[in-house]
Amino acid sequence: MKRHGQLIRVKTEKLEEYKKYHAEVWPEILEMIRKCNIRNYSIYHKDGYMFAYFEYVGTDFAADMAKMAADPKTQEWWDIMMPMQEPLETRADGEWWAEMEEVFHTD
Amino acid sequence: MKRHGQLIRVKTEKLEEYKKYHAEVWPEILEMIRKCNIRNYSIYHKDGYMFAYFEYVGTDFAADMAKMAADPKTQEWWDIMMPMQEPLETRADGEWWAEMEEVFHTD
Repeated sequence: MKRHGQLIRVKTEKLEEYKKYHAEVWPEILEMIRKCNIRNYSIYHKDGYMFAYFEYVGTDFAADMAKMAADPKTQEWWDIMMPMQEPLETRADGEWWAEMEEVFHTD
Repeated sequence: MKRHGQLIRVKTEKLEEYKKYHAEVWPEILEMIRKCNIRNYSIYHKDGYMFAYFEYVGTDFAADMAKMAADPKTQEWWDIMMPMQEPLETRADGEWWAEMEEVFHTD
């Protein structure tokens, strides 16, 4: 299992809409997350920053992310979410949510 | 079990030192974390922001936090960590790390 932390911003005027969508997330999105071997996935908000924590239990993260990106319902969801988001300028090439560095862990 | 997300900043010039301390965390600190019913505790870094995720498995979070705060070794650790940190101005009264709002979770 590999833990991930990711960071993005949400536009101030879109915050409530973003939260509402996530409070009523489509079942197909949850199903695809699970099929792509992601578990214990949480998103937290503070001051326009959205932090995501999840645990990847598969063996090929890139392949699972490609599978997710190829899913039509996920694309539909992202087409709504992405205009609400402001990715960090310091994110790596190819990233939307910026991967964070784990500096501490204890079970 | 109750999940927590928390946010703080670390001073740019202290980032490497902060990371080094956490890479070689004192065993007494880990022991106290466990005694205070905190599990699966991770800290992530990006652009000076430190995000903490943990799972609280006890029944009285305030009491457990008071127990942690009363521990001399934890106080010694915090006396080193706190001057490296910059708490968010928007944190609630009595907070150091700012509690974040959970906007999404799936198991």
